Amino acid sequence: MKTLFQNAKILKLNTDNGYITGDVVVNGNIIEYVGKKAPNGSYDKVIDVNGNVLMPGFVNAHAHTAMTLLRGVKDDVPLQEWLMDGVVPMEEKMTDEDVYWGQMLGIAEYVRNGITTFEENYFNYEGFTKAINKSGLRARIGIGPKINDRNNNHYQYLENLLQIVKNNTDESLVNVVVYAHSIYTISEDQFYAMVKFANDKGYPFSIHLSETLKEVGDCTVEHKELTPPGYIESLGFLDRPCLCYHCVHMDKDDIQILADYGASVATCPSSNIKLASGIAPIYAMQNKGINICIGTDGVASNNCLDMFKEMFLVSTLSKVSLYDPSVITAKEVLEMATINGARALGVNSGEIEVGRNADIILIDLNSPHMQPSTNIISNLVYSARGSDVYFTMVGGKVVYDNGKYNIGEDIEKIYEKVNEIRKRISSND
Amino acid sequence: MKTLFQNAKILKLNTDNGYITGDVVVNGNIIEYVGKKAPNGSYDKVIDVNGNVLMPGFVNAHAHTAMTLLRGVKDDVPLQEWLMDGVVPMEEKMTDEDVYWGQMLGIAEYVRNGITTFEENYFNYEGFTKAINKSGLRARIGIGPKINDRNNNHYQYLENLLQIVKNNTDESLVNVVVYAHSIYTISEDQFYAMVKFANDKGYPFSIHLSETLKEVGDCTVEHKELTPPGYIESLGFLDRPCLCYHCVHMDKDDIQILADYGASVATCPSSNIKLASGIAPIYAMQNKGINICIGTDGVASNNCLDMFKEMFLVSTLSKVSLYDPSVITAKEVLEMATINGARALGVNSGEIEVGRNADIILIDLNSPHMQPSTNIISNLVYSARGSDVYFTMVGGKVVYDNGKYNIGEDIEKIYEKVNEIRKRISSND
Repeated sequence: MKTLFQNAKILKLNTDNGYITGDVVVNGNIIEYVGKKAPNGSYDKVIDVNGNVLMPGFVNAHAHTAMTLLRGVKDDVPLQEWLMDGVVPMEEKMTDEDVYWGQMLGIAEYVRNGITTFEENYFNYEGFTKAINKSGLRARIGIGPKINDRNNNHYQYLENLLQIVKNNTDESLVNVVVYAHSIYTISEDQFYAMVKFANDKGYPFSIHLSETLKEVGDCTVEHKELTPPGYIESLGFLDRPCLCYHCVHMDKDDIQILADYGASVATCPSSNIKLASGIAPIYAMQNKGINICIGTDGVASNNCLDMFKEMFLVSTLSKVSLYDPSVITAKEVLEMATINGARALGVNSGEIEVGRNADIILIDLNSPHMQPSTNIISNLVYSARGSDVYFTMVGGKVVYDNGKYNIGEDIEKIYEKVNEIRKRISSND
Repeated sequence: MKTLFQNAKILKLNTDNGYITGDVVVNGNIIEYVGKKAPNGSYDKVIDVNGNVLMPGFVNAHAHTAMTLLRGVKDDVPLQEWLMDGVVPMEEKMTDEDVYWGQMLGIAEYVRNGITTFEENYFNYEGFTKAINKSGLRARIGIGPKINDRNNNHYQYLENLLQIVKNNTDESLVNVVVYAHSIYTISEDQFYAMVKFANDKGYPFSIHLSETLKEVGDCTVEHKELTPPGYIESLGFLDRPCLCYHCVHMDKDDIQILADYGASVATCPSSNIKLASGIAPIYAMQNKGINICIGTDGVASNNCLDMFKEMFLVSTLSKVSLYDPSVITAKEVLEMATINGARALGVNSGEIEVGRNADIILIDLNSPHMQPSTNIISNLVYSARGSDVYFTMVGGKVVYDNGKYNIGEDIEKIYEKVNEIRKRISSND
């Protein structure tokens, strides 16, 4: 299968305008040509992009996708009430099938909004892995110890999860990361089992880190004045590639630790401000050379899966928190949302370049808020929204095209199912 | 002309769910019925809302609409460079006709995003008033002294502007406010002329106030330790109804002054964070009983006209700045964006209620990010975006319907014109 995209503004962030005008050819699941004019030849499909934007699909570096089921549960209440009276009791009722449908709804939202790759952290593995596999999206799946589990079979637990992932997914689209929920929910025994498991199998790590002031304060009390980055360093958790989610409350030394180990950071601004966690020091981390990427987090906290919203926030929250409108430019934010995310997740996507995965989205410029179309890069970061995406391709497969979803389940059936499930799991509210 | 809307979720913020299910009838330019089932009778048009949301159009309480022409000009640079090398030289080249087309683009963006009323502050009055009139949107237009003008005919200047507005617009849709750009661009002579003019004619006031730390600091030095609210109080500027834009840097006494005089505040969060001005103390002002409404500000600073984006920010920036996720609820934010704005602008809109102006929008719930549709109010504030609006009516006139604009100019022609104008006015960049 060979597809030709013609007459596109192709995002190329290292050029003056941020894009070049021309053609892109996809052969199978790979980008085969990028340039002014594709070679003559026979193509199975020719798509006229009509001067609109062709760019890499977004990489969502932190998500709990099936939490779409919990959209709008207990907003605007204190954190403990949201978690203990809202999220937790409803999650306890979720079956594998519930999580399958929640995952499908999230995947529909991803493809609608141009997200082609995501890092997944959730439970009911049988449920969500099947949805990922059926949809054809690209993902890195976190294999994580059970929260607050005091038994001695942590290594075997990880092994079991790994088998589910391997059985249910396609390794050309799905890879694996060893995932610790956080320093306050995972015991030292569990951490050591994870380190051994990752070393044995050659996997990287990920973890929620320094998300709230409470986490940092509690950590320094419990772990001999070590902050969360210092604590995970002491456990050997930074000796392998590590992706740290959030990193809101980081001092100079914390930032230096992550920089020294070459860790990546996934910032999740909408979640951080809606849960009142804080504003991450993106500019400081960027200046230390840390690879910054962007995540949506789960819908229960943020409440939607739109990387345009997150991009706007990464830039503007950095500006306002430093009283400096010049920090964190539109180009930098676009890199974070694409190539930096791909680097963090270890996938060969995130750039429109020969040899990369054909993870491609098209953005419509024919809307009032995208005109005049003089400064495309600025419009993408500061004015666009997920609904401007009109076409989404993952590894050469079209998963969304102008209102049509191609993710393995009918969109109306997904809506029907998630509303039924929501009703059932919130029945004691 | 009589229109029946059937089978709608009608926004009613004082009910438990925030909405009732039923019908709405519009007769001419007014809402005639709201309830479970409209009376039988003959209707010129019947619209099946199909269980989607019917709500009042948004009131954008602060805008410089034609700045759409400057979308993406010099983002990510220091404020002075943005203003002096970007905005000002381009504005100096704008003709009445340029501003007409810039206004038209902004109006297209308004109706696409469900904004039915706005407060306008711009120049080239002949240009923008004609666009407002042609489109049929509702507006309050600021009549303001010329910036940094030292002549003695300020009163006559206002009189002349008023005549342009009266000549070019329809008084059933457009009213007037006497508008001071700011304390640092308007002289005391000009303020006194404004106060006399407003008193003579019975108009309210509006002003940019305490937007930046620099404004507040300079004011206390120049005006015997008075902050901006204290200074305008001393000029008699708060003796009439007053709408203050921004109000980012407000101490306890400043807030008390505005509360004592019953002034309204239009908060513009996306502009404030993108320009790195700061985060407004919305919760403190709300607790003092100040009427808070929401504005987009101009596109040069924010960079789009989407009240959903602003609503999300009003709530979440308040939460994060106080480290409290419970402050500024979704319901409160919806009130700010509708009825509070209508109150501040003195228009009989902002609520779906018998006798109100028929300023009505319909919101599609059949998108992944609006499902499950359990908590409609939350979804509207924390997940929705302007593109979810599929129908917009102002005073009984349909101005947008599923991709079709009815604002007096062809949408493609608007795009063509604004791109031409942008090219010309930025030719020395």
